[in-house]
Amino acid sequence: MIPKTKTPLIWLTAPFALIANGFAQEEAVVDETKAGYDALIAGQGDTAYAFDFFTTSMLWTVIAAAMVFIMHLGFATLEAGLTQKKNTVNILFKNVWIICIGLLTYAAMGFNTHYPGDFNGYFSIGGPIGDLNAEGGDTFSYGGVGLAMTGFGDFIFQAMFAATAATIVSGAVAERIKLGYFMIYSTILVAVGYTVAGSWHWGGGFLASLEVPFKDFAGSTVVHGFGGAAALAAVMILGPRAGKYSANGVKPILGHSMPLAAVGVFLLFFGWFGFNGGSVLSAAPGPLGLVFTTTALAAAAGGVASIFTAVIVLKKPDLSMALNGLLAGLVSITAGADVVGPWGAVAMGAVGGVIVVFSILFFDKIKMDDPVGAISVHGVCGIWGTISLVFFTTEPAGTFSIVSQVHRSRCSLWICIRLLTGSLPDRKSNLRSSRQC
Amino acid sequence: MIPKTKTPLIWLTAPFALIANGFAQEEAVVDETKAGYDALIAGQGDTAYAFDFFTTSMLWTVIAAAMVFIMHLGFATLEAGLTQKKNTVNILFKNVWIICIGLLTYAAMGFNTHYPGDFNGYFSIGGPIGDLNAEGGDTFSYGGVGLAMTGFGDFIFQAMFAATAATIVSGAVAERIKLGYFMIYSTILVAVGYTVAGSWHWGGGFLASLEVPFKDFAGSTVVHGFGGAAALAAVMILGPRAGKYSANGVKPILGHSMPLAAVGVFLLFFGWFGFNGGSVLSAAPGPLGLVFTTTALAAAAGGVASIFTAVIVLKKPDLSMALNGLLAGLVSITAGADVVGPWGAVAMGAVGGVIVVFSILFFDKIKMDDPVGAISVHGVCGIWGTISLVFFTTEPAGTFSIVSQVHRSRCSLWICIRLLTGSLPDRKSNLRSSRQC
Amino acid sequence: MIPKTKTPLIWLTAPFALIANGFAQEEAVVDETKAGYDALIAGQGDTAYAFDFFTTSMLWTVIAAAMVFIMHLGFATLEAGLTQKKNTVNILFKNVWIICIGLLTYAAMGFNTHYPGDFNGYFSIGGPIGDLNAEGGDTFSYGGVGLAMTGFGDFIFQAMFAATAATIVSGAVAERIKLGYFMIYSTILVAVGYTVAGSWHWGGGFLASLEVPFKDFAGSTVVHGFGGAAALAAVMILGPRAGKYSANGVKPILGHSMPLAAVGVFLLFFGWFGFNGGSVLSAAPGPLGLVFTTTALAAAAGGVASIFTAVIVLKKPDLSMALNGLLAGLVSITAGADVVGPWGAVAMGAVGGVIVVFSILFFDKIKMDDPVGAISVHGVCGIWGTISLVFFTTEPAGTFSIVSQVHRSRCSLWICIRLLTGSLPDRKSNLRSSRQC
Repeated sequence: MIPKTKTPLIWLTAPFALIANGFAQEEAVVDETKAGYDALIAGQGDTAYAFDFFTTSMLWTVIAAAMVFIMHLGFATLEAGLTQKKNTVNILFKNVWIICIGLLTYAAMGFNTHYPGDFNGYFSIGGPIGDLNAEGGDTFSYGGVGLAMTGFGDFIFQAMFAATAATIVSGAVAERIKLGYFMIYSTILVAVGYTVAGSWHWGGGFLASLEVPFKDFAGSTVVHGFGGAAALAAVMILGPRAGKYSANGVKPILGHSMPLAAVGVFLLFFGWFGFNGGSVLSAAPGPLGLVFTTTALAAAAGGVASIFTAVIVLKKPDLSMALNGLLAGLVSITAGADVVGPWGAVAMGAVGGVIVVFSILFFDKIKMDDPVGAISVHGVCGIWGTISLVFFTTEPAGTFSIVSQVHRSRCSLWICIRLLTGSLPDRKSNLRSSRQC
Repeated sequence: MIPKTKTPLIWLTAPFALIANGFAQEEAVVDETKAGYDALIAGQGDTAYAFDFFTTSMLWTVIAAAMVFIMHLGFATLEAGLTQKKNTVNILFKNVWIICIGLLTYAAMGFNTHYPGDFNGYFSIGGPIGDLNAEGGDTFSYGGVGLAMTGFGDFIFQAMFAATAATIVSGAVAERIKLGYFMIYSTILVAVGYTVAGSWHWGGGFLASLEVPFKDFAGSTVVHGFGGAAALAAVMILGPRAGKYSANGVKPILGHSMPLAAVGVFLLFFGWFGFNGGSVLSAAPGPLGLVFTTTALAAAAGGVASIFTAVIVLKKPDLSMALNGLLAGLVSITAGADVVGPWGAVAMGAVGGVIVVFSILFFDKIKMDDPVGAISVHGVCGIWGTISLVFFTTEPAGTFSIVSQVHRSRCSLWICIRLLTGSLPDRKSNLRSSRQC
Repeated sequence: MIPKTKTPLIWLTAPFALIANGFAQEEAVVDETKAGYDALIAGQGDTAYAFDFFTTSMLWTVIAAAMVFIMHLGFATLEAGLTQKKNTVNILFKNVWIICIGLLTYAAMGFNTHYPGDFNGYFSIGGPIGDLNAEGGDTFSYGGVGLAMTGFGDFIFQAMFAATAATIVSGAVAERIKLGYFMIYSTILVAVGYTVAGSWHWGGGFLASLEVPFKDFAGSTVVHGFGGAAALAAVMILGPRAGKYSANGVKPILGHSMPLAAVGVFLLFFGWFGFNGGSVLSAAPGPLGLVFTTTALAAAAGGVASIFTAVIVLKKPDLSMALNGLLAGLVSITAGADVVGPWGAVAMGAVGGVIVVFSILFFDKIKMDDPVGAISVHGVCGIWGTISLVFFTTEPAGTFSIVSQVHRSRCSLWICIRLLTGSLPDRKSNLRSSRQC
């Protein structure tokens, strides 16, 4: 045994670790090691029986949170790679801002707005978090099997999700929005927009009270669809980048670094294992393995499907379509990752991979300029994934309902477009950056 | 307690989480939390006694799978960095293809080909996976202590390995193979080649039935040696890049981005902790710490050894040799990471780091053009690692046998070269891309 | 059940996994699965009662080690991005060297120097590690609740920290130090400097024996402050890059790649969850969630604070200040991540984010050339974090003491500057690279 400590606490509770020369001391060490462990168990109160499962589940929660965090790097590099070099610093700055403000506002009001407790089901604004370890918040009684984590674990995992919606918008409005406006817009979006809309479902709001409850496992609609809708609204207001659409047709504005873009997509894929896997909300081994498998297979199917679709439609292999196909597969499986089998996941991902190619071409045709394809990847495929799980699920018929599934998408779209276009109709020129393309 | 749910399932099983105002409800909550946990345990059937260990081990399996996944990003950026800028998009596209097709074919036939069950020991082609959670696949009885994971966990961890062989080849044939041919070749390689060859050992085939069973912990030969052999065969057929070897000697074709290459190697190093650590196939703490330690020390020793070897041989420090030295150390320890001590690992890695420098120079001398050094890193060091564990192991003498260890390498090499050179002798020009260097 | 094995060991202990056709065999399988598990438990000896908690904690340790490893990639890309393109290869080479030599020297002497056991409290040099799994090193009795990992887990987690100090220096002396000298200097620093200074606190030395023991949770001072002090000393000796400071004022030498720098900072943020989270030294769920939360919030607050500080001071948004603000927040929370609440973390991080901007401007003003801001980020914010925890802690008053906290910073600074400036006063020209800017 090596005498070592790191915190004064340990110095107080574990003096046994200091010297161990002689039999008496060794026995004392054994006793004190046991005492330390017993104290840990005792801290779990009535739910001590589940201590080990709870510990493992909580560990998974925080690791998954770190993996979701890395998705923000993925978004940043993907966006930077798919846009022009002159805008790179601006884009990176926005992504640093988003993760920072997302975490802070989620602590200040987001978490308690997202999960308001007993509320009217539609609207409630919460206050800042306090000591979430207090009052049993650090025990299994916090959420039981269905939410096997501490209060702080719950907070940090959810906080990493919160900023995602804003980061999706960031890609869609790249290369033309004023920095200051984007900072304000993204702050409101993550602090209020995402969290209020999230409370309808995950917070126990009206979507959770439908006759056949709305189902969205890890956020095809609640996160990605919402981000896609917000992106669509923002693009409608901002208009396209200068020079993109002219009388002479569409001028492609190429990204400056495919390695950066590829790094971004691979990191997003990696992080998605935390995004979906962490949404099991415990380390229950059965669902965990299923969710990792469906997530990976849907991504792979999306990639392959968009590769072939692009070859057929564009007459050549296209890396950016392949990358978007991967993401399309991931978004498509996110709503139902725990209720479909491996081949259902392949089908859902593959269709997502086909959809995304046509969707990107469609939005370009109607002159909605989306530099990274965010509306198609997150919005359109988010809706596809949310609805299609009804057909591909392995759960008994009637478990999910098309009507319920559609309901939420409609709400997201409505709130985003209504709020933005209603409030900011003629301020387009104010929002646009002079540094635009 | 915060009322929150994510899935309808939870809404059904945990209504207790909704309202908790009043003593009676609180007691009900306690009871229902217990009921939820008891149901989870009951799902483990006869092996409920190991539920917590099983859960932790399974968690490690899926995290390790995600870490192995990130190796594919490492391979992609390493390969892109060490080649010319004009080929970057092509290389990234190939790497997206490989991970997608690797996952899909492994689900469609690879997994059941790799682990065919009771078979003749040489050849068996399996069908697609089904619901691997069924029939106890989500319990400890699936594999016990030696394979403490669910069926889906087993699948996804192995699936991440499968594409590795193809990705190794990708580096060796970079900058001159036609995209379509590579897509077909890599599909066959991961779907059939890797899995059949893998069944000889990990699937319980003839290599596992030798008098002294063949030992390859995480795949020095089974994965890396195989990939290296396939790369060698492909390079033999394709020939060198145009202009690389001429009457005036060797013209170095420099990589375009050392940062990309370095990012790749560090990510590979990171992912290798999942590759080797996950190959413990449980979270047993003793082996886990040993494997992490031997893996890290071998890599470090490989890096230092190749740095000094390059200084002596090339008369200057060489970053790409240092990077390849790190990888050489990693490949060298992969076969024996669980049966050598820390200083054995240092020795094995260091020798690997020396070997790789001379091997790269050697292949260049005999005009085998391998842009990223894949044959040397994965092939030659894979063989070194597989054989040298016999000398450096801390296991009792006689546990491993040189003859058994050599056997597999020979088989891999034979099958790869035979198949490729036999079937495609005069089609070299068809395989070569016009976009070649 | 799928017959599968990976190691000869498993072939010996788990023949049950091979064939399972028939009832008798199935029962045998059940029995042998149980036997395998019982053997695992029996290996834990007197501390078998904690096996599952120990296994989970050890798993967290090695995962955290891998996350800290990835910080070395973060440092490498941050440093490469913030310097000139012509020096990139040199910088990457140095970072490969540091991680390799850091791991090797930590095995050869660092670990046992860092944790010398019973010593005089000031100085002791240890020898190489041996089989750390021996003599109960792979059981809970190794360190109990306060250090719930095996000996090898302990080693590899600490080894990943060891090289950090040198990597911090690497950034500060970038673009002007001779490669050979840096290699020697960094070797001595990680082998002796960091470990001896670390033994004062974490090794049970004199800092741990103060009346109110010195508190540094994960290394604001022990790691970052030490690295910053060593960087300051090195910069004092080396002097600025040629042309940076002239009669005409300060000539900014811009970094060549902000994407690389941003990738570096995000990876450092990610790795910090392992750095701080792993320093809980077990998977105890309460502290784990708290530490993840305080770490993330401090980083976010640091980023936002430095963004606004830069806007006010520099009159424009500044990405590199934003990135350094994130890191400043992380360094600021590292000493007290487990003893402050979420809002204390926000305050500590925010002040760190303000400090770092002024500190970077200050060092530039006094002509201390620090290309990446390492002295400010790690040194100055390390001291801030170490001292400020006394004010922001939620622990009872009197738990920590300003005097004790200041003591260590003074020691680090003294030893670094004294040793370096004392021994190498007139060798500046020898140390400087002719390749300097």
